[in-house]
Amino acid sequence: MKIFCSKDALLSGVNAVQRAVSNKNPLPVLQGILIQADNQSLQFAATDLEMGIRCDVPAQVTEEGTMIVPAKLFTEVVRKLPDTTITLEEKDQQITIGYYQSEIILHGYDPEEFPLLPDLIEPLSFELPTMIFKNMIKQTIFSCAAEENRPVFNGILLQIEGTNIRLVATDTHRLAYIISEITNSGESRFSGIIPSKTLSEIYRLLRDEDEVLNISYSSNQVVFQFGSIYLISRLIEGQFPNYKQVIPQTCETKVYLSVKEFLDAVERASLLSRDKSGANIIRINVENNELRIDQSSELGKISEQIGIEMEGKDVRIAFNAKFLIDALKVIDSDRILFELSGPFSPGVMRPLDNPNYIYLVLPVRTS
Amino acid sequence: MKIFCSKDALLSGVNAVQRAVSNKNPLPVLQGILIQADNQSLQFAATDLEMGIRCDVPAQVTEEGTMIVPAKLFTEVVRKLPDTTITLEEKDQQITIGYYQSEIILHGYDPEEFPLLPDLIEPLSFELPTMIFKNMIKQTIFSCAAEENRPVFNGILLQIEGTNIRLVATDTHRLAYIISEITNSGESRFSGIIPSKTLSEIYRLLRDEDEVLNISYSSNQVVFQFGSIYLISRLIEGQFPNYKQVIPQTCETKVYLSVKEFLDAVERASLLSRDKSGANIIRINVENNELRIDQSSELGKISEQIGIEMEGKDVRIAFNAKFLIDALKVIDSDRILFELSGPFSPGVMRPLDNPNYIYLVLPVRTS
Repeated sequence: MKIFCSKDALLSGVNAVQRAVSNKNPLPVLQGILIQADNQSLQFAATDLEMGIRCDVPAQVTEEGTMIVPAKLFTEVVRKLPDTTITLEEKDQQITIGYYQSEIILHGYDPEEFPLLPDLIEPLSFELPTMIFKNMIKQTIFSCAAEENRPVFNGILLQIEGTNIRLVATDTHRLAYIISEITNSGESRFSGIIPSKTLSEIYRLLRDEDEVLNISYSSNQVVFQFGSIYLISRLIEGQFPNYKQVIPQTCETKVYLSVKEFLDAVERASLLSRDKSGANIIRINVENNELRIDQSSELGKISEQIGIEMEGKDVRIAFNAKFLIDALKVIDSDRILFELSGPFSPGVMRPLDNPNYIYLVLPVRTS
Repeated sequence: MKIFCSKDALLSGVNAVQRAVSNKNPLPVLQGILIQADNQSLQFAATDLEMGIRCDVPAQVTEEGTMIVPAKLFTEVVRKLPDTTITLEEKDQQITIGYYQSEIILHGYDPEEFPLLPDLIEPLSFELPTMIFKNMIKQTIFSCAAEENRPVFNGILLQIEGTNIRLVATDTHRLAYIISEITNSGESRFSGIIPSKTLSEIYRLLRDEDEVLNISYSSNQVVFQFGSIYLISRLIEGQFPNYKQVIPQTCETKVYLSVKEFLDAVERASLLSRDKSGANIIRINVENNELRIDQSSELGKISEQIGIEMEGKDVRIAFNAKFLIDALKVIDSDRILFELSGPFSPGVMRPLDNPNYIYLVLPVRTS
C-alpha cells in the first residue's frame, strides 16, 4: 500500500475514529486504527466491539492496500507532522510515514485480525438535521446513570413513531424526555436503547452546522451517518422503564420561574449545603409568590428568595442540588413551569416556550 | 463594617489575591482573605508568609472596618453572585453578603490574627513596562528546578546594574538568561533570587497591555506594583551560581537553523525515543549542512533531516528532549544560532535577531 495525502486529511481521519479505539480489550489489534486505501480515498476505522467508527478522507492512492497503525502513537505522530504532503507506505506490517527528507517507521498489526464493521442488512432508516439531534442529546444525556450495574440506565431510549423521534434518559432518580418532528415517509417504527457512550461520541463528532444525519437500524444495531462519518453501535438489551407511566399528568402547585434566577440560587445554596457525606440537599419553600431556599451548615447560612408566579398549594420540598442544576443548565428557555405535588411526589420542569421537553426529578425525603 | 460594591469589583479582588492564600499553613487565619474597608475602597490581602498580595477595588464604604473571609468558600460564592450591587457587612466575625432579597452568612476569622504585609522601609526602586517583564519571565522561568532540595535553583536571579535588568534561571542542567534595558536614573544596583512561585504569580497577574511595573527591593524582600496590585515576596537566601563563568565564549560548531523546524523534529523524535525509565534522549548529528536525528526504539524508528547552515566541525551530541523543547517553545525568533563544541560541552542557543537572550543546555553522555 502506498498513498499521498495532506496532514489535515490524516488528522481528521484519526480524530474521527480514535474514541472507538479500545484501550483495555485483550485483543491487541483493537488498539489500532485500520486504514484502507482504495479508489482515491483512505478509510479509517476503529472499534471497541461495542461501537465502531469509519471515516473517509481524500488521498492519492498509488497502491491500494490495508494497514493497521498503533492508534495512540500514530495519532501523536500525525499531530506533530508538518503541513505538507505526507506519504504513507506499508510493507510487511511496517508503516513508513514520509515528509520532506524525513521518515518515521512504526510497527503495525496484522489487518487480517481486525474485526469487520458490519453494514446493516436491509435496514430501515430516516433523516433529520444534525443540529436538532445534537440538541436532543444535550438535553437528555446527563440523566443517564454513571454506574454500570444496570445496563438499560446507561443508555438512552431512542423511539421513532410516525413523524416523531424521542429520546428518553433516566437513572431512576430523574428522567429527561425530548421529542422532535422528522420527515419519515416510510412510517417506520423503532425503539432501542443506545449506549450513552455512543451518543456522547455522536455529540462530539456532529459539527455546529446543519448537515443531514441519517439513522438506520436493525433489531440490535444502529448506524449514524453524517458527513464522511459512519458510526455503528450495538443496542443495549433489556426493558426500558415505561416513562409514560412515570410522568404525572396533574399537579397541585404550578410554579413559573426564571431558569437563570433559579439556577443561580440553587448553585449558591449548594455551596453552603454540602455535607461530609457528599450529599447536597436543597430545601425549597414555595408560598406567597416567592420561592425560598433557607439552609445552614457548619459553613454558614443562606437564604435565597426569588420572585415567581404560582398557582395552587404552598409546598415545601427538597431535591438533590445536582439534579436541579444539571437540567437548569441545559434548558434553553428563559422560563419554566415547575410542577409540584407535595413533598413526596416528583417535580416536573417544562420550558414555557417548548412543549417538547420534560424533566422529572424525584424529591429527597428530609427529616 | 459595611460596604456596597459591584460583583465584578469583588471578583477582581479575590482573583488577584487568592493564589497567595495558604492552604497548608497550620495558622487557620492564613486560609482567609483580609478585606479592609476605608476611604471609598476595599483592600483585599492574602499571604502564605512567603508571598503576600494586596489589591484595591472601588467600593462605597458606609462603615469602615476589617474582616477576614474564608478564601475558598468566599471565592466560590462571589463567582456565583448576580451582576448587581452587593452589600458586605461584618459583625462579630459573621460576614453577611447581601444581594436582591437574598443573603449569605459566612463565618469569618479574627482580623487581629492576620499577619501584616509589610511596606519596605526606604526601598530602592525602578520602573519598566509590564510587557517586557512578562516576556522576560516567560523566557526563563521554565529553567528553574522543580524539586525543593536546593532552594536557590527554585528561584530566578534578578539583577539590576545601571540601565540593565537581568533574569537568570537554572536547574544545573540548563540555564536561561535574558537582559533588558530600563530607565534607571538612580543607578541603583540589586541582586536577589526571587522564588519561581512569585514570578509565575506575577506572570499570571500581568495583563497583556502596557502598564508600568514598579519593582522595589530591600536586602531580603522585593515588591512588585502594577495597576492596583501590590505583591511582596521574600527573597531566597543563598549564593546563585556564577552564570558568567558557565556560558562559553567560543565554540567549535555554529549551527544556524529554523526554530520551528528544529522544534517539530525534536518533538516527533521524542515520541519515538521514550524509554521505560522516562528518559527521552535525542541524538543529533550535524554534518554537510544537515542536522539529522536518527533513532529507534521498540516503538519504531525515526530519521529526521533538516537543512541548516553551519560553520566549523561536524558534531554528534545528545540532549534531553524536554530541555530542547522547553526553550524552542518560548524563543520568539524564527531562527537561532546553536553553538556546539563536541559531545561533552554545553550547547548554547542564541536567537539570531535578539542578542539579549541565551539558553544553555548540557548534553547527555550516551554510550
